[in-house]
Amino acid sequence: MAARKVLVIHGPNLQLLGGREPDVYGKVTLEEINSQLDSLAKELGVTLEFFQSNHEGDIVEKIGGAGKNFDGIVINPAAYTHTSVAIRDAVSACGLPAVEVHLSNIYSREEFRHKSLIAPVVKGQISGFGVNSYLLALRAIAALLK
Amino acid sequence: MAARKVLVIHGPNLQLLGGREPDVYGKVTLEEINSQLDSLAKELGVTLEFFQSNHEGDIVEKIGGAGKNFDGIVINPAAYTHTSVAIRDAVSACGLPAVEVHLSNIYSREEFRHKSLIAPVVKGQISGFGVNSYLLALRAIAALLK
Amino acid sequence: MAARKVLVIHGPNLQLLGGREPDVYGKVTLEEINSQLDSLAKELGVTLEFFQSNHEGDIVEKIGGAGKNFDGIVINPAAYTHTSVAIRDAVSACGLPAVEVHLSNIYSREEFRHKSLIAPVVKGQISGFGVNSYLLALRAIAALLK
Amino acid sequence: MAARKVLVIHGPNLQLLGGREPDVYGKVTLEEINSQLDSLAKELGVTLEFFQSNHEGDIVEKIGGAGKNFDGIVINPAAYTHTSVAIRDAVSACGLPAVEVHLSNIYSREEFRHKSLIAPVVKGQISGFGVNSYLLALRAIAALLK
Amino acid sequence: MAARKVLVIHGPNLQLLGGREPDVYGKVTLEEINSQLDSLAKELGVTLEFFQSNHEGDIVEKIGGAGKNFDGIVINPAAYTHTSVAIRDAVSACGLPAVEVHLSNIYSREEFRHKSLIAPVVKGQISGFGVNSYLLALRAIAALLK
Amino acid sequence: MAARKVLVIHGPNLQLLGGREPDVYGKVTLEEINSQLDSLAKELGVTLEFFQSNHEGDIVEKIGGAGKNFDGIVINPAAYTHTSVAIRDAVSACGLPAVEVHLSNIYSREEFRHKSLIAPVVKGQISGFGVNSYLLALRAIAALLK
Amino acid sequence: MAARKVLVIHGPNLQLLGGREPDVYGKVTLEEINSQLDSLAKELGVTLEFFQSNHEGDIVEKIGGAGKNFDGIVINPAAYTHTSVAIRDAVSACGLPAVEVHLSNIYSREEFRHKSLIAPVVKGQISGFGVNSYLLALRAIAALLK
Amino acid sequence: MAARKVLVIHGPNLQLLGGREPDVYGKVTLEEINSQLDSLAKELGVTLEFFQSNHEGDIVEKIGGAGKNFDGIVINPAAYTHTSVAIRDAVSACGLPAVEVHLSNIYSREEFRHKSLIAPVVKGQISGFGVNSYLLALRAIAALLK
Amino acid sequence: MAARKVLVIHGPNLQLLGGREPDVYGKVTLEEINSQLDSLAKELGVTLEFFQSNHEGDIVEKIGGAGKNFDGIVINPAAYTHTSVAIRDAVSACGLPAVEVHLSNIYSREEFRHKSLIAPVVKGQISGFGVNSYLLALRAIAALLK
Amino acid sequence: MAARKVLVIHGPNLQLLGGREPDVYGKVTLEEINSQLDSLAKELGVTLEFFQSNHEGDIVEKIGGAGKNFDGIVINPAAYTHTSVAIRDAVSACGLPAVEVHLSNIYSREEFRHKSLIAPVVKGQISGFGVNSYLLALRAIAALLK
Amino acid sequence: MAARKVLVIHGPNLQLLGGREPDVYGKVTLEEINSQLDSLAKELGVTLEFFQSNHEGDIVEKIGGAGKNFDGIVINPAAYTHTSVAIRDAVSACGLPAVEVHLSNIYSREEFRHKSLIAPVVKGQISGFGVNSYLLALRAIAALLK
Amino acid sequence: MAARKVLVIHGPNLQLLGGREPDVYGKVTLEEINSQLDSLAKELGVTLEFFQSNHEGDIVEKIGGAGKNFDGIVINPAAYTHTSVAIRDAVSACGLPAVEVHLSNIYSREEFRHKSLIAPVVKGQISGFGVNSYLLALRAIAALLK
Repeated sequence: MAARKVLVIHGPNLQLLGGREPDVYGKVTLEEINSQLDSLAKELGVTLEFFQSNHEGDIVEKIGGAGKNFDGIVINPAAYTHTSVAIRDAVSACGLPAVEVHLSNIYSREEFRHKSLIAPVVKGQISGFGVNSYLLALRAIAALLK
Repeated sequence: MAARKVLVIHGPNLQLLGGREPDVYGKVTLEEINSQLDSLAKELGVTLEFFQSNHEGDIVEKIGGAGKNFDGIVINPAAYTHTSVAIRDAVSACGLPAVEVHLSNIYSREEFRHKSLIAPVVKGQISGFGVNSYLLALRAIAALLK
Repeated sequence: MAARKVLVIHGPNLQLLGGREPDVYGKVTLEEINSQLDSLAKELGVTLEFFQSNHEGDIVEKIGGAGKNFDGIVINPAAYTHTSVAIRDAVSACGLPAVEVHLSNIYSREEFRHKSLIAPVVKGQISGFGVNSYLLALRAIAALLK
Repeated sequence: MAARKVLVIHGPNLQLLGGREPDVYGKVTLEEINSQLDSLAKELGVTLEFFQSNHEGDIVEKIGGAGKNFDGIVINPAAYTHTSVAIRDAVSACGLPAVEVHLSNIYSREEFRHKSLIAPVVKGQISGFGVNSYLLALRAIAALLK
Repeated sequence: MAARKVLVIHGPNLQLLGGREPDVYGKVTLEEINSQLDSLAKELGVTLEFFQSNHEGDIVEKIGGAGKNFDGIVINPAAYTHTSVAIRDAVSACGLPAVEVHLSNIYSREEFRHKSLIAPVVKGQISGFGVNSYLLALRAIAALLK
Repeated sequence: MAARKVLVIHGPNLQLLGGREPDVYGKVTLEEINSQLDSLAKELGVTLEFFQSNHEGDIVEKIGGAGKNFDGIVINPAAYTHTSVAIRDAVSACGLPAVEVHLSNIYSREEFRHKSLIAPVVKGQISGFGVNSYLLALRAIAALLK
Repeated sequence: MAARKVLVIHGPNLQLLGGREPDVYGKVTLEEINSQLDSLAKELGVTLEFFQSNHEGDIVEKIGGAGKNFDGIVINPAAYTHTSVAIRDAVSACGLPAVEVHLSNIYSREEFRHKSLIAPVVKGQISGFGVNSYLLALRAIAALLK
Repeated sequence: MAARKVLVIHGPNLQLLGGREPDVYGKVTLEEINSQLDSLAKELGVTLEFFQSNHEGDIVEKIGGAGKNFDGIVINPAAYTHTSVAIRDAVSACGLPAVEVHLSNIYSREEFRHKSLIAPVVKGQISGFGVNSYLLALRAIAALLK
Repeated sequence: MAARKVLVIHGPNLQLLGGREPDVYGKVTLEEINSQLDSLAKELGVTLEFFQSNHEGDIVEKIGGAGKNFDGIVINPAAYTHTSVAIRDAVSACGLPAVEVHLSNIYSREEFRHKSLIAPVVKGQISGFGVNSYLLALRAIAALLK
Repeated sequence: MAARKVLVIHGPNLQLLGGREPDVYGKVTLEEINSQLDSLAKELGVTLEFFQSNHEGDIVEKIGGAGKNFDGIVINPAAYTHTSVAIRDAVSACGLPAVEVHLSNIYSREEFRHKSLIAPVVKGQISGFGVNSYLLALRAIAALLK
Repeated sequence: MAARKVLVIHGPNLQLLGGREPDVYGKVTLEEINSQLDSLAKELGVTLEFFQSNHEGDIVEKIGGAGKNFDGIVINPAAYTHTSVAIRDAVSACGLPAVEVHLSNIYSREEFRHKSLIAPVVKGQISGFGVNSYLLALRAIAALLK
Repeated sequence: MAARKVLVIHGPNLQLLGGREPDVYGKVTLEEINSQLDSLAKELGVTLEFFQSNHEGDIVEKIGGAGKNFDGIVINPAAYTHTSVAIRDAVSACGLPAVEVHLSNIYSREEFRHKSLIAPVVKGQISGFGVNSYLLALRAIAALLK
């Protein structure tokens, strides 16, 4: 069987990681996260493509077109978690299994971050473990694709 | 009198029509919808321009600039129906009569889809008739422009 | 195939049309609406029966008995839109496709008019186009009955 | 002691029983329910009068006048359960013990069916057992009248 | 100037007055209220017509047709105060000044009685004075009609 | 029997009457209202004392001390209607019958004006008739004191 | 067919029956209720096992293990009605038909007692008839098991 | 460094796993989950102790006493997720890092399951991956303990 | 008169006092609190029995059986303050005067801690004074028992 | 050490104590309360100053100026408990420890009395013990000032 | 043109500025603020009158009488921002343009401070800049008066 | 010290200024606003860069990258004020002081415009003064940067 291909989506402001509020989000940069993900992907026998965007529409399009190119999705919707019906609809529409990731524990932050519009349409959600949230999500999607 | 010109806007994820959740949205593609609209437009003596975007900002700009090029708008705001104050403000600002369209009956779906931010600023709303929602909306706007 | 028969229901206070608050509801009388509907019905090859009542119970009974005499329903529930579970249940129970109609754009009026108890059990809803709401609804139901 | 007389009220749309959504309401007709109730009434030594109406006002009047002719009430308010303050007031005003009945389990249906305006003014409520809800209610009112 | 004609509407369950829960509504019958109103009407130089109904639809129709026969309305909507958009719309539509009356102080009773759907469309509201609520309302409407 | 003594309380901003937003509150000054009240009081055989204050505490004290000097209260709490638990408690504590008055129809104004903290502890409420609200309230309290 | 076996569960504080607030719960003890139930069970040809506990966990375990030993459940969850998701999940999980019972009419008591977490997963609910609530529930479950 | 010791807590009804609603919770038994966890624990160099209870109080005590015997906690609070402040307080009080686990995606189930009282006091939450939720949680806690 | 006997109940997690979050709950152990209470009890001429439990059911049973052995109750329901209807019902049922105690000021903590289900059925509540909350409560119950 | 000085504030309507609704507030007058407080103060070695006002502004000013003249505050905010942000801000601003007192159990009264705006900024709250609430509060503040 | 006259109102507790919670409100005293305002006023060619009060009624009266003596108002309603309908009504009634000022950013503080009852009736609002909020407000009102 | 550099961000639809609903937003164009801002900037010794976008993502990126190029931000988020968590997060992340600006008084418009998601993370907010809102904001940020 060919290696499963997973699309990893990083939502708005995640390009700032490492510099942005390190007490909330940690000191690791997005590049380092991607690098750690790539290492684990090799171990798990899947291949990854990374996509960061601050544009809701770009993320919608990327997911909308993912059905033919990928087998699964790992997505950290960041701020769009709480406001984007469009990304939710795209995840539903693409038909791929998806895993929602959050670096911080969104349930110990402001009230408005406790509600995810994306969560009802993904397979599962992992939040609160910093970079490790991504790595665990990769393991989760890899297991789902077996 | 010159033929009235109507801008037809398709919101996010509608590029996927035909493939996306056909039990909810039907099997017709966006191209086929546009083609049916064009046929009816001829019959009604109006001309159409189609615009699909997954970007809230693009839709805002298209509507913002529509005042000088169009006489009316037919818009399916899709997911942005429930989240976009910016599109609502653009519709208000452009000064054109607009008709809101939904393929599915948004009132028999999830609770959050029952509330349209756009509806208070359009002339009227048509939902639940699949492709026919668009055709009826075209008739509605054509009648308003007479 | 015999002509499809559509029941057109006008809810409470609609007998006053033409005189009642013309800035909200227009100057056309109910008779004129029915007459325009009849003309369009002929064109569409369907036959119509009109029923106006201010009594929730009458409307419930008319719909309850419609299953054996009609093929579809066009209903403007007017004030009962927002308060009648009984009409909702009757529409569900009769098993016919129904289209909900409003003369005014209920979403640009008082908050309590934004919620329709009927909408979740009809095929679709059309609001805001004055008399044309009815005509579009007739087209919608005719298309559904084909 | 003369036989106790119980008024059995069937609310809106219940005339459709047997045909209406049988997966929700069962296949028994209203006549069959009444017949089963009559059999049990004989066994319990009470007499029954049946009243079905789709009109809130008729039910209000029937209850309002029941005080001098009946000893107790069994009522399935159906859709009016959730919307009729007038029936609630009539039950309060008539001064008779009443039992509220529902064929289906209203607490496992739509949210708006979970709230009964009638329940606070009756002796008790029985819901979810189909025809048997009525039979149990008859036993309940008969016991209350002893 | 011809005597002003006032329509006095008594809503559901008010036919029971005198017998119904006298600690809440007093011991006076509806006939006695009407008689007291007639006496005061003579003194004020207005003529009255009384209308009691338990049917929302009847009240809607009576008000809908009042525009050509009356100069003003005194209405005790009773239970329909809290549930009838149809009566509210009829009052708006008829174009006559109206006064809303309640025998009891609705603001010291159950929470759901604190909200009147009718109040926003009448001239004013009087509640809590028993029969005197009606008499004060008659004075109020008579003053408005001068 | 000695003439009954009624305390008439005018709440905050009512000293401005006649000048303040005449489309909402009318053009009559507070002095003219008091004068009309005095005329009616003579006719009804009661005596009046007027008290206007913009201070919640003053009104609380006036009512608190009213028990030994007055037989009843007519109060227009104005803005304090919606915010003062202290005045509510004072009315409860003084043990006198009270009537609540509003010049405008508070139920057709902003949402926050629909809720009166005072209403549950008075005998009744009269709103919407301008100066006549006061005159009707005086009649109401005079009748209660008979 | 072997006699059907029904598990009768009495929730917290029900061991106090007969002494506890007799105006709310009656003067009958739990033993007397069980005895009346046993008599009726014989008549109906079912056998009963009684279980009273004040421990949510005990009730959860009893229900969890009921699947192999019983054919149906009659449960008065008492205070846990309003707070226990665990008992709800146990009822769902055990796969047996269950009937929810309340001695008092929970809908005429404090607001927080109007909401049952258990009701959506049982067959039906009976409340307000004192001991007779249990007897009716036994009849209901016996009928369901036929 | 000595092997880190992790307490694995299974909440109410989880003893039923494998039999209970397999479409929601899967067909794996609790023993099999524990066995898979033990295998992974060896790989990760941690030791595990398993604790299942249907009693809120037992779980509270187990966590309360965990501080001196364990280095971290993996907890599936099941139904108590949504109702137990006591378990939340125990997790806070014990001072150990904890990971919350759910077999199903609680955000795609009933509304009341979307709110976790436990989530704000744990390090992170993993839901929706069946048995794998536990395995990922074990990896998460192991990483936190390094 | 024999010495009055007071039952002192400590709710869940209070066995941890002294070690648990000392900035919130202080450094005093439960034993030290009990010892201070015993000293004051002697001074006040009452005798005490202490009961700590993490089990809602145990607390329910202890209170349920307290009626014959005690004259009053001091209870710190801790986490069950906000979630236990069963303890509330037990306090109501036992018929003894009770005083509710909280070490911390529950009104300056998380929103969900502001609502006590127990408070409406006790004589009074004391919160925020650490150990002294208990001592004041003992004085309060002793005074009530005189 | 000089004797600690405590400011005792009595809020609106408390000047009426003894006469006002004695079933809710008891028959003791404010003077008697102050006298009992003075006796206890001597025993505790603190001195007291009493201040009663019906004016929110007076209370705000008294507290605002208390910082230099007092060591602590005992306050019964009465009706202002539920409406005064200004008193809350004054308590915060003065920097003194304060104890909130209520004669009645505010949690067993109307819903709007359950919420205290003052509670989050005081050390603790005591409610429900009549005069003894004040005496306990004096002990509490005295202990805090040691 | 004569110099425009601006009334500057400081609400409750602002007399404490400089001493009160300096981390929230800064270290500047009210006198210093007034002095800085006077300097800027000269530069802008307007004259100022300052008014500080802790009494809602005083502020209501000052504003009510401002119409004839002033051309505009700068007001920091402080705590009354969130509770005073009376001040709102006074601002509306006086007919002068007004600017609302807050030293702190009220939107980053407690939830109840996010809602201003005054804001809907002023020209604009400035919050969060400490003393500079006042200076900017003076510029704003001066510009409005040109 | 080098001149401070301020980024001025204009949100969606602001490119339409001058033409769009002039009764709400005034007749000044965006170019004229920028020109007035530039003049004031010179006076204040700061330099400005202007950025208008209808794209949430563009604004997010501009702010995200502003940390190294600017000293402060003036932002009119327009419609995104009420819907964009992404812009809020960007403002937080960039670490620069920011001032929120609105042309109209958002608190006197539709309810949904009263809530700003951005306000809690900026220094302060200025709304309601038309173009002058921007000029005052520039003064505010310039003062903060000193």
